[in-house]
Amino acid sequence: MSKLTESARKMLEGKNFVYLATVNPDGTPQVTPTWVDTDGHFVLINTAVGRVKHRNVKKNPHVALAITDQTNPYNLVLIRGKVVEHVTGQVAEEHIDKMAKKYRGLDKYPNRSPGEQRVLIKIEPVKVITR
Amino acid sequence: MSKLTESARKMLEGKNFVYLATVNPDGTPQVTPTWVDTDGHFVLINTAVGRVKHRNVKKNPHVALAITDQTNPYNLVLIRGKVVEHVTGQVAEEHIDKMAKKYRGLDKYPNRSPGEQRVLIKIEPVKVITR
Repeated sequence: MSKLTESARKMLEGKNFVYLATVNPDGTPQVTPTWVDTDGHFVLINTAVGRVKHRNVKKNPHVALAITDQTNPYNLVLIRGKVVEHVTGQVAEEHIDKMAKKYRGLDKYPNRSPGEQRVLIKIEPVKVITR
Repeated sequence: MSKLTESARKMLEGKNFVYLATVNPDGTPQVTPTWVDTDGHFVLINTAVGRVKHRNVKKNPHVALAITDQTNPYNLVLIRGKVVEHVTGQVAEEHIDKMAKKYRGLDKYPNRSPGEQRVLIKIEPVKVITR
């Protein structure tokens, strides 16, 4: 049973950015906006292997997310969670194309660097707050 | 000399929300959207005394912020910084009214709880990245 509420799921399914916070190895926080997806249970983030947020969650799986509605910034969902899986390979490569479709209407993700490998990060929601 | 670039200053002066990440006492990250201001040198955040973000930065002054342009979410400023001052009293109370004016066009901040004390958190920017 996922902790995602109906309103949290809708926000994650919408064309909204999520602000993902992780902790750096030196104990300082890090935050970046990113595209987001959900399978109804997990929060799904797709990033490139070796980027700061990927390196951070490999060492410290605890994350926090804030999502606001693009059309109303006072409509807010906060999620605390834990990264439970890192998926690379074809699934992750196809998933970034799905994200490019969702957010930009494109069939292929256009910003791949040469040799870039994508990773799909699965986050188990621990606490979900809707405001 | 502040590390704030001209474009970072403009983003902070604009009617944009900032996503402020702090670290909880248990080492997990926390992130919330908030109103923001700058005096040209510091990043200024106004919160209520005793709230999670205030408690966190009293224990661990390291913060990270992400700001995107309301009108173009791909226009991004990332700031790593350190809380160097906590100002309470009249200055902080007047400052939240200034924020209510900036973001909502109101002369007085309308959401004060009974007995609420405001605190103006001054953040020294350590690293500023504009994308």
